[in-house]
Amino acid sequence: MTKIYLAGPEVFLQNATEIGEYKKKLCGLYGFEGLYPLDNVLELNANNPQENGLMIARANEKLIQEADAIIANITPFRGCSCDVGTAYEMGLARGLGKPVFAYSNDERFFLQRNIEELPGVNRLSDELFVDHQQMTLENFGLIDNLMLDGSVEAPIIRHQLVDKAQKYSELLGFEQCLKQLQKYLE
Amino acid sequence: MTKIYLAGPEVFLQNATEIGEYKKKLCGLYGFEGLYPLDNVLELNANNPQENGLMIARANEKLIQEADAIIANITPFRGCSCDVGTAYEMGLARGLGKPVFAYSNDERFFLQRNIEELPGVNRLSDELFVDHQQMTLENFGLIDNLMLDGSVEAPIIRHQLVDKAQKYSELLGFEQCLKQLQKYLE
Repeated sequence: MTKIYLAGPEVFLQNATEIGEYKKKLCGLYGFEGLYPLDNVLELNANNPQENGLMIARANEKLIQEADAIIANITPFRGCSCDVGTAYEMGLARGLGKPVFAYSNDERFFLQRNIEELPGVNRLSDELFVDHQQMTLENFGLIDNLMLDGSVEAPIIRHQLVDKAQKYSELLGFEQCLKQLQKYLE
Repeated sequence: MTKIYLAGPEVFLQNATEIGEYKKKLCGLYGFEGLYPLDNVLELNANNPQENGLMIARANEKLIQEADAIIANITPFRGCSCDVGTAYEMGLARGLGKPVFAYSNDERFFLQRNIEELPGVNRLSDELFVDHQQMTLENFGLIDNLMLDGSVEAPIIRHQLVDKAQKYSELLGFEQCLKQLQKYLE
């Protein structure tokens, strides 16, 4: 059975386990098996938080190695781009030769988000926008940093969210990725 | 000659090429060759920005494939975590079996940065901090998201910056990574 690593910042939600169960059930409906970071059962040591963090990282890397594909939730997280852990995992999967699929519950393009949300954006010419530190904003009509857009096997799903409270838990975009994977495997 | 891919958000600076030249010269002093994203000479098409962005992504991936190691500047970028393009490239390098090294020009630990910079952080118990969306803050005594801390072959360099204007261009932490790589190769 095709195994899919389920990457995304929903692991930081208070009901992270529940969201993972929903995702895994949806995978099952499409004939896939979902591997969720919180599936890992680890013996953590209360006296060594750093070692615990690194143990979780190793366990997640192992799950990605076991997986045949990855579906990443790249909804912007604490800023205009996706969670860096998710970005890392997309890169890792790509390096391991596993197909990458992604969705965002923010339908805006990267430049527009940056213009709307970063402080002190300036337009220096038709094409050139900079932030308050005079650092360029990417202007390629893409969804997030170009490395992320470049990693996927099918167009990143931009899902228009109806209820903002569902920003990290709405799964319609995720389901579209399952369909993309299904088509990819045909 | 050992080739190092030079990842980091300095590519968004107005003097990005100059910083790349400095980094490559430093690599040379240690007997390495630096590969910088802006080394790529690409024929961009003014009418197709999306294809240009994806072409840059492919060219960067190719440079990482050519490299023997990666040194990533994970100084926080437009938020509390590093640039997502850099995080992706660390993952890609790791997946390709290339050793990863990293430095940050922000000496604070991840939790401290989050507490100081995110709006509406709440402490729910001794160990549990959440942001204004009730999403957990990582509390492992690490430098950034645990996947990044888990990717490196030597401890991430936390460099204490003297001049804040040098946040993305100061290279002392980078030089420490060159020393780490030198030791790694011994």
